[in-house]
Amino acid sequence: MSVVVNTDRAATIIDGKSIAEDIRLHIAEEVHQMKSTVGHVPGLAVVLVGDRRDSESYVRYKTKGCEEVGIKSLLAKLPGNCTENEVMDSVARYNEDPSVHGILVQLPLPKHMDEERILSVVSLEKDVDGFHPLNVGNLALRSRKPLFVPCAAKACIELLLQSGIELMGKHVTVIGRSKVVGLPTSLLLQRHHATVSVIHAFTTNPEEITRESDIVISAAGVANLVRGSWLKKGAIVIDVGTNPVEDSTSDYGYRLTGDVCFEEAVKVASAITPVPGGVGPVTIAMLLANTLDSAKRVYGLSD
Amino acid sequence: MSVVVNTDRAATIIDGKSIAEDIRLHIAEEVHQMKSTVGHVPGLAVVLVGDRRDSESYVRYKTKGCEEVGIKSLLAKLPGNCTENEVMDSVARYNEDPSVHGILVQLPLPKHMDEERILSVVSLEKDVDGFHPLNVGNLALRSRKPLFVPCAAKACIELLLQSGIELMGKHVTVIGRSKVVGLPTSLLLQRHHATVSVIHAFTTNPEEITRESDIVISAAGVANLVRGSWLKKGAIVIDVGTNPVEDSTSDYGYRLTGDVCFEEAVKVASAITPVPGGVGPVTIAMLLANTLDSAKRVYGLSD
Repeated sequence: MSVVVNTDRAATIIDGKSIAEDIRLHIAEEVHQMKSTVGHVPGLAVVLVGDRRDSESYVRYKTKGCEEVGIKSLLAKLPGNCTENEVMDSVARYNEDPSVHGILVQLPLPKHMDEERILSVVSLEKDVDGFHPLNVGNLALRSRKPLFVPCAAKACIELLLQSGIELMGKHVTVIGRSKVVGLPTSLLLQRHHATVSVIHAFTTNPEEITRESDIVISAAGVANLVRGSWLKKGAIVIDVGTNPVEDSTSDYGYRLTGDVCFEEAVKVASAITPVPGGVGPVTIAMLLANTLDSAKRVYGLSD
Repeated sequence: MSVVVNTDRAATIIDGKSIAEDIRLHIAEEVHQMKSTVGHVPGLAVVLVGDRRDSESYVRYKTKGCEEVGIKSLLAKLPGNCTENEVMDSVARYNEDPSVHGILVQLPLPKHMDEERILSVVSLEKDVDGFHPLNVGNLALRSRKPLFVPCAAKACIELLLQSGIELMGKHVTVIGRSKVVGLPTSLLLQRHHATVSVIHAFTTNPEEITRESDIVISAAGVANLVRGSWLKKGAIVIDVGTNPVEDSTSDYGYRLTGDVCFEEAVKVASAITPVPGGVGPVTIAMLLANTLDSAKRVYGLSD
């Protein structure tokens, strides 16, 4: 293969697809081994409420990911006008089902539902999304160990570590503070002894803070928020954003783009994840890894 | 009283003693009212293991604080060579005792004991220190509400708010990341929509980060760590440190000093808490407030 080496100004593109592929191969091996040792495979159950097209496609990716590594996948699909109790019943049934080791309630739920109330029903031992407050507390307390760490946070760290990037002592700015990405990522980074700044919509000088950071992880959900001028020369950029933007040249009329203005950032950063093909596939791989870990705990195969 | 007004270079000294006094008066009123309404007062139980002089004096302050506001205080004093199970038995008895609304295990415990294991026994409803992982998780998740927030973290925020300092959008650097102060303070600040950076022993450029912060909260436990040169002109400084330093002029041979080099900081900052007389008394007031809140929940008097 011939590689065109650009000037020293082009960042390394961190290949999330290939990293995810390696992780999946490893998981597939372990699932195979589990099946021959204990006669069971891990099972992941997804509860999907309503018919949001983005949620449906995320669930499709997750189901496909399961199939590829031999994890059994189950799906409860409920109409958008069902009741909170019906959703909680679905979760409760999966809690009881011994063939299910991970339960995932696809977010966002319809607006009339109390998300926290529904998520509280997910058994702590099957909380592969890591959103249970006890898992979050155990993630925050460095002397404890959570059963599960949220998948996108794990994916960000995995991308950095697999790229040979040292975290200890590095100044990392996390943009966004959602429970799905920003919060757990900032907590996980601190377990790796990074210096962490969390910025968000109320931050008055975001670009000033990012410009002094060795690593920028953006999970704001705002297309092209992070410009080249926001970055220190040689910074490492992890882009968790997947924002739909209009694109008449695409078959769907839109395409997905990250939080980071890639064309600008690639000239300043030393390494950057693309969107798509960066954090996304590794996040799904981490969901499979969490499900595998859960099954290993149940069958006494944990390290 | 005549007041000598200095040049514009002297910071306002935030008077923790006086703020604590106001809080205690308010608590005393509520305790009095509780007694007349339901015939009970709040109760705080302290478990003290060993004979560390600093721990003994902290416990004395807490007990004295209880007496002043009419909260019943109980003390279980165990020898340093007792077993983990004996400590857990003490906690368990207080869990069962309906006259106890708050339980506090004085830290640090002797080195041979598993602190996390012992703290796990404290009933979630009596965890006035706020160290239970579920309380920490509910503090971290902004859509949830913890039953208790750790006292020192609450004290830092209270000192800022009572001094009329707006937190939303401010850049706050927290020095230290212990579960007792740094971690919960950083989480609580984020609930107030501050932009938070957490720095610690692995941070390579601490002074660079503090120098860009509007507010610096230091809980590192290192005397005179924060020099005047670490601060932006006009910054606000909350000093949680209480470090013993040798002092031959003192009756005890030592005196307590903060993390911040006060003489230097007072010339740069716009407001600063002294040590002693800053965070300390307000932290104890917050312990009393947490105990009162717990009793109010039990007797159905919560807002």
